[in-house]
Amino acid sequence: MFSKSQYKLITSLAQKKYREKHGLFIAEGKKTIIELINSSLRLHSLFTTEDIFTAEKEKTYFLKEEELIKISRLSTAQTALAIFHVPEPSKPDLSDLIVALDGIRDPGNLGTIIRLCDWFGIENLVCSEDTVDCYNSKVVQATMGSIARVNILYINLSDFLNESATEVPVFGTFMEGENIYSENLPAKGILIFGNEANGIRPETAALVDKKLSIPRFGESGETESLNVATATAILLSEFRRRSLTGM
Amino acid sequence: MFSKSQYKLITSLAQKKYREKHGLFIAEGKKTIIELINSSLRLHSLFTTEDIFTAEKEKTYFLKEEELIKISRLSTAQTALAIFHVPEPSKPDLSDLIVALDGIRDPGNLGTIIRLCDWFGIENLVCSEDTVDCYNSKVVQATMGSIARVNILYINLSDFLNESATEVPVFGTFMEGENIYSENLPAKGILIFGNEANGIRPETAALVDKKLSIPRFGESGETESLNVATATAILLSEFRRRSLTGM
Repeated sequence: MFSKSQYKLITSLAQKKYREKHGLFIAEGKKTIIELINSSLRLHSLFTTEDIFTAEKEKTYFLKEEELIKISRLSTAQTALAIFHVPEPSKPDLSDLIVALDGIRDPGNLGTIIRLCDWFGIENLVCSEDTVDCYNSKVVQATMGSIARVNILYINLSDFLNESATEVPVFGTFMEGENIYSENLPAKGILIFGNEANGIRPETAALVDKKLSIPRFGESGETESLNVATATAILLSEFRRRSLTGM
Repeated sequence: MFSKSQYKLITSLAQKKYREKHGLFIAEGKKTIIELINSSLRLHSLFTTEDIFTAEKEKTYFLKEEELIKISRLSTAQTALAIFHVPEPSKPDLSDLIVALDGIRDPGNLGTIIRLCDWFGIENLVCSEDTVDCYNSKVVQATMGSIARVNILYINLSDFLNESATEVPVFGTFMEGENIYSENLPAKGILIFGNEANGIRPETAALVDKKLSIPRFGESGETESLNVATATAILLSEFRRRSLTGM
């Protein structure tokens, strides 16, 4: 059972302004919730149809399946819905690679990029203020639990780059940049990816030290640019390969 | 205007069995349709609100916006809907890299993989018979026009691998494979990617010569496997980088 005020809280968290007001966000699905409970995130409350979680008893509410369906935002409700506290982001550490996003709009892309950061050991993800909110439930879902392991910061990207640019190199991916396979790629720096339709904004691009590009092998010359999440995958793999193999 | 029989044909093509029966599929969106008209694909008919396409006049039908909305499967209908003939796939050429998919279910993943094949000059994509249909409108949409430039074949994957395995090496990605950055990756071969939830099937895995793995850099050890489309991006980049740089 959930109370009327719990129901109101859960439905309000679909909106960014209420997530910000309450400092809370929603996660759904058995696997994701288990990962988040075992992470450094703080659980607020758990609504579940099965007694399979290690959450504190006083925060756990058992539901019937039809009750879970009422509060779930998934097309097929999955065992449980949990509310977690939004963690306080820390100042990014410039001694490792940092990923920066300039106006990413698609929740699936952001979720995939967070998962990639986790895989490649990128601890800090810096997002422009107009990037889609990482506590949007579609993003949380797409991260498959990785959201608990990446420090995600929303800030004015130009200010951040201006402050950091004296300390570390700033890289961006462009259609007409230097070949990533032959450029020198250091172990630290900031790696910027731009909006799905428009790429990196001119005012952000002005702060980039080195423009990079993934070579195209197709003959056609007609190919659209790569999807931003696949471009992120390729760049992170190539940066990490260099630091691993030294070549 | 469209006729009643045209309306029936268009709506029927949402289903795979009718796409197969008629040998036709639907593409939507201005950019995609322009790319497909300029490709080797054969146009069947074009329904558009604007006179901006170079399609044959006798195949072009002008619509009012509310008519386009009626036949569109997009949440916001975009200028035009076109019907194309499904091309006859050719036998894959074993002298270059081939991508093979073992039970990919998500249309967005398949579309992204087709776009990646196009970018990396992979001419042949071989799909197990239970892989989602590439002429599904969500897949067509996600390929951004690349679907016209990749030869896509649906076949019994075990038979194909059995026939080809004597000629070229077969690679697959697994959690416990060899590090892709240090393995020898040749310019030709078959590269298999598995289902989103279950990976490569045991009977397919039995035909793999070399198991590969993308190293994980995160500390957590908890990370889920990578999304199949991002794994494909990383593998294709690494195979092509080797053939380009010889290292």
